[in-house]
Amino acid sequence: MEVKILKNILGANDQIAERNRMLLEQNNIFTVNIMSSPGAGKTSLILQTIKRLKDKTRIGVIEGDVSSSIDAEVVGREGVPVIQINTGGSCHLDANMVSNALNNLPLTNIDLLFIENVGNLICPASFALGEHRRVIISSIPEGDDKPFKYPVMFHDADIVLLNKIDLLPYVKFDSDAFSRALRSINEKLEIIPASCTSGEGIGEWLSWLLAQMGGS
Amino acid sequence: MEVKILKNILGANDQIAERNRMLLEQNNIFTVNIMSSPGAGKTSLILQTIKRLKDKTRIGVIEGDVSSSIDAEVVGREGVPVIQINTGGSCHLDANMVSNALNNLPLTNIDLLFIENVGNLICPASFALGEHRRVIISSIPEGDDKPFKYPVMFHDADIVLLNKIDLLPYVKFDSDAFSRALRSINEKLEIIPASCTSGEGIGEWLSWLLAQMGGS
Repeated sequence: MEVKILKNILGANDQIAERNRMLLEQNNIFTVNIMSSPGAGKTSLILQTIKRLKDKTRIGVIEGDVSSSIDAEVVGREGVPVIQINTGGSCHLDANMVSNALNNLPLTNIDLLFIENVGNLICPASFALGEHRRVIISSIPEGDDKPFKYPVMFHDADIVLLNKIDLLPYVKFDSDAFSRALRSINEKLEIIPASCTSGEGIGEWLSWLLAQMGGS
Repeated sequence: MEVKILKNILGANDQIAERNRMLLEQNNIFTVNIMSSPGAGKTSLILQTIKRLKDKTRIGVIEGDVSSSIDAEVVGREGVPVIQINTGGSCHLDANMVSNALNNLPLTNIDLLFIENVGNLICPASFALGEHRRVIISSIPEGDDKPFKYPVMFHDADIVLLNKIDLLPYVKFDSDAFSRALRSINEKLEIIPASCTSGEGIGEWLSWLLAQMGGS
């Protein structure tokens, strides 16, 4: 008699994330998971990107929040397909929530999908969603010590966008200390200083994004 | 035969929180749980309070972070007893962590204890620690929509300190919209606008705090 042994190599979330990724790749959709503290500028970065790229690339958005549909309403006004996920109380998106959202998006009409995670520098890092890249936004008013306090999130990022640099003259923030802290956690991590208000650095962000899409 | 039915009225965390509270009250320690997003100003508020009250009140501090001891080192320089809790990966403090910290503090030498929670606007709200009051710090650069997006945290607060008002001239923030959002969640909630940088509003914060201690 032969005994069948089933190895559960991936946990449930990772299995669903892999299925999401396959579905996204079948549809040639490059997907970016954007994570940050509350109010660091996730929605602002998505809006800036839509405004500058929407004539070149078909963009879709999944908005994650514990509660409310404020962000989806703002993004929807730009004329792109958007789905709001309310987690109810959960502090992060998971692959199953994203799977449900993908079932409700016009996938054949999207080339670039942003998933805006729940505002939280801890929990979202542990949940793969099927994304191709992970972007962390850190903002000047939060202070230069965040990489030390939330190392897992920064360790697993593909890039850090340092937002709100227009506020540098008004707050205490040591840019060199921030860079050193980041490098001590992930020495290859690229930092793009930017401001979604003034537009500074957004060109560099778009260059990075388009290069990733080309070479994904 | 008589059947004994044991009702587990409180969950494990709440039971330990009750024990913490009894221990704190036996030692006449008024305890404040301070919660906010990363970088909203929890440590700055504690430092401002220590500087202005330390000749009148004996203060102790428990610092909660996923990682690092940066905050405990800064607070320790003020000459007050401080314990750093590293949660390892957990997104909030719980009552058992605080119980361990209390065992390592000189309780008979403390009148006012601050517990600085992990920077997170979601998870800490669900975990009682044994505190007498819950303070939420929301900061101007985070935006005026935070109460809608993180309603549980704001609903259960005793007061909201709206920090970094010195940045109001430089960012988009509608103070009336913020107040309306808060009132829609908890109509009795008091807001203290303040800046730990300029010192504005700190007098009102201390007045509130001392009144609560007197009447706890």
